[in-house]
Amino acid sequence: MSQREKSQRKNAFYAQSGGVTSVINATACGVIETARNHSNKIANVYAGRNGIIGALTEDLIDTGKESDEAIAALRHTPSGAFGSCRYKLKSLEENRAEYERLIEVFKAHDIGYFFYNGGGDSADTCHKISQLSEKMGFPMQAIHIPKTVDNDLPITDNCPGFGSVAKYIAISTREASYDVLSMARTSTKVFVIEVMGRHAGWIAAAGGLAADEENDIPVVILFPEIEFNQERFLAKVKDCVESYGYCTVVVSEGAKWPDGKFLAEQDTRDSFGHAQLGGAAPVVANIIKDAHGYKYHWAVADYLQRSARHIASKTDVEQAYALGKAAVEMALAGDNAIMLTIVRLSDDPYAWEIGKTDLVDVANVEKMMPAEYISEDGFGITDACRRYLIPLIEGEDYPPYERGMPKYVRLKNIGVVKKLKTEFKI
Amino acid sequence: MSQREKSQRKNAFYAQSGGVTSVINATACGVIETARNHSNKIANVYAGRNGIIGALTEDLIDTGKESDEAIAALRHTPSGAFGSCRYKLKSLEENRAEYERLIEVFKAHDIGYFFYNGGGDSADTCHKISQLSEKMGFPMQAIHIPKTVDNDLPITDNCPGFGSVAKYIAISTREASYDVLSMARTSTKVFVIEVMGRHAGWIAAAGGLAADEENDIPVVILFPEIEFNQERFLAKVKDCVESYGYCTVVVSEGAKWPDGKFLAEQDTRDSFGHAQLGGAAPVVANIIKDAHGYKYHWAVADYLQRSARHIASKTDVEQAYALGKAAVEMALAGDNAIMLTIVRLSDDPYAWEIGKTDLVDVANVEKMMPAEYISEDGFGITDACRRYLIPLIEGEDYPPYERGMPKYVRLKNIGVVKKLKTEFKI
Repeated sequence: MSQREKSQRKNAFYAQSGGVTSVINATACGVIETARNHSNKIANVYAGRNGIIGALTEDLIDTGKESDEAIAALRHTPSGAFGSCRYKLKSLEENRAEYERLIEVFKAHDIGYFFYNGGGDSADTCHKISQLSEKMGFPMQAIHIPKTVDNDLPITDNCPGFGSVAKYIAISTREASYDVLSMARTSTKVFVIEVMGRHAGWIAAAGGLAADEENDIPVVILFPEIEFNQERFLAKVKDCVESYGYCTVVVSEGAKWPDGKFLAEQDTRDSFGHAQLGGAAPVVANIIKDAHGYKYHWAVADYLQRSARHIASKTDVEQAYALGKAAVEMALAGDNAIMLTIVRLSDDPYAWEIGKTDLVDVANVEKMMPAEYISEDGFGITDACRRYLIPLIEGEDYPPYERGMPKYVRLKNIGVVKKLKTEFKI
Repeated sequence: MSQREKSQRKNAFYAQSGGVTSVINATACGVIETARNHSNKIANVYAGRNGIIGALTEDLIDTGKESDEAIAALRHTPSGAFGSCRYKLKSLEENRAEYERLIEVFKAHDIGYFFYNGGGDSADTCHKISQLSEKMGFPMQAIHIPKTVDNDLPITDNCPGFGSVAKYIAISTREASYDVLSMARTSTKVFVIEVMGRHAGWIAAAGGLAADEENDIPVVILFPEIEFNQERFLAKVKDCVESYGYCTVVVSEGAKWPDGKFLAEQDTRDSFGHAQLGGAAPVVANIIKDAHGYKYHWAVADYLQRSARHIASKTDVEQAYALGKAAVEMALAGDNAIMLTIVRLSDDPYAWEIGKTDLVDVANVEKMMPAEYISEDGFGITDACRRYLIPLIEGEDYPPYERGMPKYVRLKNIGVVKKLKTEFKI
């Protein structure tokens, strides 16, 4: 490479935002491997330590210090390898200093590409950075790469991270249902599993996949989209137990009472008067016990579901990687202020391609479960929902194992030498 | 086969008892496939529908009606394919009628071999049946095949079912820890996972495998064997968060306060005054929050852990199958009133063989975690414990998948025509 070519290269910035997933590192892998393949254009990829906070505090990670093997291993490693954060930038009007600081840091480190891997909030940040950098005379190409287990971003067919959670919940619900069926004669008759999804019921819907033509399992789903009707719910559970001998309930953490309060927000206190922050699962289990007296068990999957790389969906891993790769390619082709999307071409066999959409169309839009995906009684999923979900959980992509345990990678995460004299307080 | 040979054949009875596991069907598979290979001695295997209740009520399942493919698929199907039950037979003095009924049913169906697949209680039942059948002039060979996720049976190196739960908990704890590490800068600092094991801390100990030389994860374990010391626990958690930025807590459902009460038995009430049956995980999370203010997440794995066939330990599956096979072979060789055992020959590489022990030595002995397996501070596991545990989780044994979901088998479970005129009330 000539000196001239070298001097024209820019660095890229990559950061992970919000709740992590079992495949967000596959996207990081796609970004970094593709950037390495274009080293004539991209000098290095700097990652934000703990997401955008790393950019604000000039705490950048030099991914160039990691071996090719370590970067390749990101593809099968859950969590956010560079750290993520829950830190929402205020509006431009409220805190212009934050945005200016970001651009100051990017300028100091000669960053020409901004890849932000996150959900709705980060799409908004990405958009503002693109606009402001232009105004400040240091134009950067800002590309948002979708990621969220909640699957609630608009326009894209789905969000990387969701397919693997959906697979985990579908499998776990099926496995636990087999278990309960075995025990129901003398013991547990109702099993309640609580799943993530505070606003949208996509993950809860995946529990419905536990049942199919060969697995006649009575699954009752409580969606955040459907107001909880205790009477109808109890009748449904009773009906299942009387017909099948048992019942499996999948409750979304976002399920709500008619007054809008979360089921999980029961006003419970322990013997010392401390508020007890329980989950929705024990609340639902107790409601059933009180009404019908059925013996129950309940589980709260919590982080287990979104970090379960051991049973990730192959489709999901492939899409997560492909989006990272495409982000770099599109940036080099001149794209800016876009979010990448998955475009579904057909359900069965599943065919998809990478698309893009303007960031202005993404910000502040949440994609809920459409009404036609929820069965008429409100407790199940429709065939249309199955056609949508099944491709997303297809395929297994097992990590390598050593002595019984998955081999996940921990990066060295060596910092880039700071260039600015100023500190920035978070 | 001559008529004479045919008439000398006996039927075998097989039943599953107590909480099911992800590999108890692998034992059933071993029993039935091996019996089929000895059809000159064993005419058919009848399974108890819902365990011993099926024998008491003469509700037997004719496994001969299942195809070889269906029986082979049991090897990768979690749960109890014939149904299990929680039903403890009373002592001979208290309810001799139950035992006599069992022998009456076995006699009516020409059963010469009694294979009972369960934990401590079923070992006791097995023993009594062997004794009584002899006294009643219809001697049966009673063989107990160990099974329990709790791993608390004596003499045997381990109990089938445990290795797979251990693997699931070790992996889930590692995966969730990676997740928390990613989030700890601005969000969750403490993750609490509750695991099974009401009396013994074997499953909790498996959480300690999340950490190893390459995975420096701060795991704090609360064992049932160690009295909960709130002050020391809080200091330990604080220490982890200050050194590592986060902390992972594995709490056994059997963890207890100094007064002997389970942590899970907090006297919590909801706003209507109903007792709230929570888990230990939310209690522990709240204790930490109250003292240190750390943001937390918690999970309760419950049935997910013991039904997680998708990530079963290969060692566990092989041992479960081998025990089923050996039970039939030993019965044919004349053994009676024994429990089969796993005998460990070496740790690394792990070598084992099948052994046997008199049932009299098994009954009413619970194997707790030995003191040398628990670290000095009471919150972790020792190297000796690792050497014991690692071989049990080694190897993966993935089930087949179709459209993203594991293909588990549901048997036809066709009943054997009843021969007795009497009913038996449970």
